[in-house]
Amino acid sequence: MQYYARPEVSLDLSRVNEAIEAAFAAFARGETEMPPKVYVTLPGGDFRTMPAYIPALGLAGVKIVNVHPGNPGRGLETVMALIVLLDPPTGTPYAILNGTTLTDLRTGAAGAVAARHLCRRQDGVEIGLVGAGRQAETQLEATAAWLGIERVRVWSRREATAEAFARRFSRFEIAATSLELTADCDLLVTTTPSREPLVQDAWIADGTHINAIGADAAGKQELDPAILLRASVYVDDPRQAVHSGEINVPIASGLYSVDRVAGTIGDVILGRAGRRSDDEVTVFDSTGLAVQDLAIAGVAIAAGSPAVELEFL
Amino acid sequence: MQYYARPEVSLDLSRVNEAIEAAFAAFARGETEMPPKVYVTLPGGDFRTMPAYIPALGLAGVKIVNVHPGNPGRGLETVMALIVLLDPPTGTPYAILNGTTLTDLRTGAAGAVAARHLCRRQDGVEIGLVGAGRQAETQLEATAAWLGIERVRVWSRREATAEAFARRFSRFEIAATSLELTADCDLLVTTTPSREPLVQDAWIADGTHINAIGADAAGKQELDPAILLRASVYVDDPRQAVHSGEINVPIASGLYSVDRVAGTIGDVILGRAGRRSDDEVTVFDSTGLAVQDLAIAGVAIAAGSPAVELEFL
Repeated sequence: MQYYARPEVSLDLSRVNEAIEAAFAAFARGETEMPPKVYVTLPGGDFRTMPAYIPALGLAGVKIVNVHPGNPGRGLETVMALIVLLDPPTGTPYAILNGTTLTDLRTGAAGAVAARHLCRRQDGVEIGLVGAGRQAETQLEATAAWLGIERVRVWSRREATAEAFARRFSRFEIAATSLELTADCDLLVTTTPSREPLVQDAWIADGTHINAIGADAAGKQELDPAILLRASVYVDDPRQAVHSGEINVPIASGLYSVDRVAGTIGDVILGRAGRRSDDEVTVFDSTGLAVQDLAIAGVAIAAGSPAVELEFL
Repeated sequence: MQYYARPEVSLDLSRVNEAIEAAFAAFARGETEMPPKVYVTLPGGDFRTMPAYIPALGLAGVKIVNVHPGNPGRGLETVMALIVLLDPPTGTPYAILNGTTLTDLRTGAAGAVAARHLCRRQDGVEIGLVGAGRQAETQLEATAAWLGIERVRVWSRREATAEAFARRFSRFEIAATSLELTADCDLLVTTTPSREPLVQDAWIADGTHINAIGADAAGKQELDPAILLRASVYVDDPRQAVHSGEINVPIASGLYSVDRVAGTIGDVILGRAGRRSDDEVTVFDSTGLAVQDLAIAGVAIAAGSPAVELEFL
């Protein structure tokens, strides 16, 4: 059994995007096993257990991931994760991976996959980033691996955070700006932990694609529900999106209904659904699937990431 | 983060029994979080993800365990497991344990706890073992850590297996014998993977306590359903027992109903239920709980089992 402390060091982001795309497609074809995430509440947070099996990739296993919002005050990450892989024909555990950075990267890749299939242009793309934390970075980098980026605008609740982000990504034409100006773009990516809508419908031009990444638990939302009513909304998994995705609050309050969802991102990849015109507003509501974690773990191992051998059998 | 390849080496079986008893009691008091096991089907078997949190013991984590019946033909264990522990206040993973032998031992301890509370005598006990594999060994050893054993009879489908078992445990007064003679005892322990009843009601004397260990998945059963109808039946968790315990087949066929269950083993430990006379037949239907896995992992770490340090943060 191998332990990978830094499985991300050898990763090629384009290869990760491909693997996440393949995982979404396999899920949409009904060719994966993936029970819903199981939540256990802890003091100050929770942890989630995410088992899955992707026969086409020969990958089976579990991600174990916590969310403790108070951790940064203790010098710890809010979200930390381990991924355990089992050999499907025998059930033997053969790899344990530090999944903390992999979780960020596979979420970034989900945004890139959605942008490839739903953004109205693939080159000369104007991106708006609402939120300037670690997830904004991985979304930008994963998307830049596949799309041609013309301009980046970034907003954060704390202006200094947005400005620091802009300095870190000065290889792009980038500026920290207002929320309203940030929302005026081809591809809007929201990555905040907000519990109130930040992005107003009036700011969203026709034809915008929005990757709504931040909402990953009950009570979280970043978008004015009017955007969801106006847009074609795609989700990763309706079972999860209903209780923890961007649509969860509007559903709970009766403003939105799961019947309105236009399909899954896997359906879009398979050509069963997708953008119908350059004027349509589209939304991808990402909650994060166990099959994404298995897929990126498989890429990390295939890339020859360094590992230590652990005695098991 | 520590990895424990052989966490069982320093274990004291009496201390394990105490920890399992405490875990059952905490579960019965409603002081644990334990979602039902999640099953994922693989080619040739399955794996189960078992998360839990026991606030009183400060233990949170997950067991990941496979069941691949064809593994012995490949020189592998049928059941292999890992246990991951997280620090409850921060969610940080701090220990990964090889859970294969711990799984055997915590199941043995469950039998010992049930025998302490339900067997009509605690000394001079006559034990019958139906099945002579590894689980028969751990049941006998865990029970002998708490009860005085006067005589052991053992039966296996293959006589040579039972005879080899008797030789390995020659420190007891022990004999390999017929199924019917084995069933004539104070404490009957069934540990086979049978899918047909092996133990007939007519063979069970009044006052017998039965630890029904073998049935742990849909379709498995070891006892004549008439025994269940005659006995007071205790389970570890009704939610699991209904679909995977000894009672699952009689419930599916309409011969038994979950309403007849007399309580949980935790209820018995807390004095809310239990043996009412020396003539009563009692059954403990064990399916295995995630809280048992956390409890034994906690004991193994506290016992100072050897570990290797893994880079994580």
